[in-house]
Amino acid sequence: MMNEAMSPDALEAALRDIGARRYHNLHPFHKLLHGGELNKGQVQAWALNRYCYQAHIPAKDATLMARLPTAALRREWRRRIVDHDGEAEGDGGIERWLGLCEGLGLDRGYVESMRGILPATRFAVEAYVHFVRDQPLLEAIASSLTELFSPTIISERVSGMLAGYDFVDEATLAYFNKRLTQAPRDSDFALDYVKRHAVRPDQQQAVLAALIFKCNVLWSQLDALYFAYVEPGMIPPDAFTPDGAR
Amino acid sequence: MMNEAMSPDALEAALRDIGARRYHNLHPFHKLLHGGELNKGQVQAWALNRYCYQAHIPAKDATLMARLPTAALRREWRRRIVDHDGEAEGDGGIERWLGLCEGLGLDRGYVESMRGILPATRFAVEAYVHFVRDQPLLEAIASSLTELFSPTIISERVSGMLAGYDFVDEATLAYFNKRLTQAPRDSDFALDYVKRHAVRPDQQQAVLAALIFKCNVLWSQLDALYFAYVEPGMIPPDAFTPDGAR
Repeated sequence: MMNEAMSPDALEAALRDIGARRYHNLHPFHKLLHGGELNKGQVQAWALNRYCYQAHIPAKDATLMARLPTAALRREWRRRIVDHDGEAEGDGGIERWLGLCEGLGLDRGYVESMRGILPATRFAVEAYVHFVRDQPLLEAIASSLTELFSPTIISERVSGMLAGYDFVDEATLAYFNKRLTQAPRDSDFALDYVKRHAVRPDQQQAVLAALIFKCNVLWSQLDALYFAYVEPGMIPPDAFTPDGAR
Repeated sequence: MMNEAMSPDALEAALRDIGARRYHNLHPFHKLLHGGELNKGQVQAWALNRYCYQAHIPAKDATLMARLPTAALRREWRRRIVDHDGEAEGDGGIERWLGLCEGLGLDRGYVESMRGILPATRFAVEAYVHFVRDQPLLEAIASSLTELFSPTIISERVSGMLAGYDFVDEATLAYFNKRLTQAPRDSDFALDYVKRHAVRPDQQQAVLAALIFKCNVLWSQLDALYFAYVEPGMIPPDAFTPDGAR
């Protein structure tokens, strides 16, 4: 089976199957988050650590864009950076994520310093940046395809968090509204690219592996949050401590 | 205080203080391991995941050696690679670690494939390799200084594991005997290098930060083991399952 190429549609089905089994909407931490079962400190820990991921995404996209061969492809990918970094001060996805953190009562400077981030978060995020920098372009693009699955998790998240937490309101969650239109546009492009360029069996296996890798990047961030802030609740040295000295 | 340089001996004391507070002998997983309180599957998971670390150490050392400016320095550092890779087939620290894994009942090919490694292990190990490749040479060398603290943990480990587990014998633990002489020789050199070259306050702060980074690399590997195999025992997709299908 690994010796025969799949059709583009079969490849898409295999990619979507990975998401159905390994995307982080299935992780117990997200079930708690979306079900309103976390306390405010735990939600803060999630937002704080996720900031590290958000803040690195433009670096990931810039290193990918640097390897794209045409102006058309680079323009396509550049939109992602514009989405995150904005057109001006106070604009963009990172700014909106900081707004979410502030809405949860975290200090902006503390969040931006990343001093309280779990080491495991940082390692997973850097693994993603390095993967995109070092692996073949096709696999780097394929690793972005978790965005295929994000509209579902975003709508679950927004409705679940608004219903479950009195310390969360629509303004706090503004980040996610933008992503509902940005993510499908981005993933449509990446999926089309992958379906057109992953034609040999080895390329197809490589893009499937790249998507699994990326699912692991997201999954292990939630493992680390669960471990530190839910059960057994072992917070590593110097990491964020809810309501504690920092 | 950060504006004044420390004496070399004060710098050494500050480095040793980091070890006293953050070296992974303090981690609950190691307390369980050395106290004979893990079951065989949990000890297997430790050995399997630690193999990923062992197997990457020569890559870390080769990338560091590539940046050393003199033959004398490179020869000094080359000993580490010889220690790990051996002089011939069947020799070297990696081979002895595989012997430990086989002694615990793991299949050699399965271990070498790294298929069952926790993603968080891989991310932490790669963070270390990338740090050594990308950061200033002085900080790269300083990140090796966890070896200052390893003789203590090794003697605790060997005596504790021999006393605590009937499935462990001295032959299985042969890896550690070698390290008892190799680690002090290596760390003596690195400590001397750091004490002589980290003279400005900013350099001294950077080497302290490098050692904290490396402590986090080791610590987060044990966090991941604890999370997956002790409490709450949430094994990520495709990772090693004791006694289970793999």
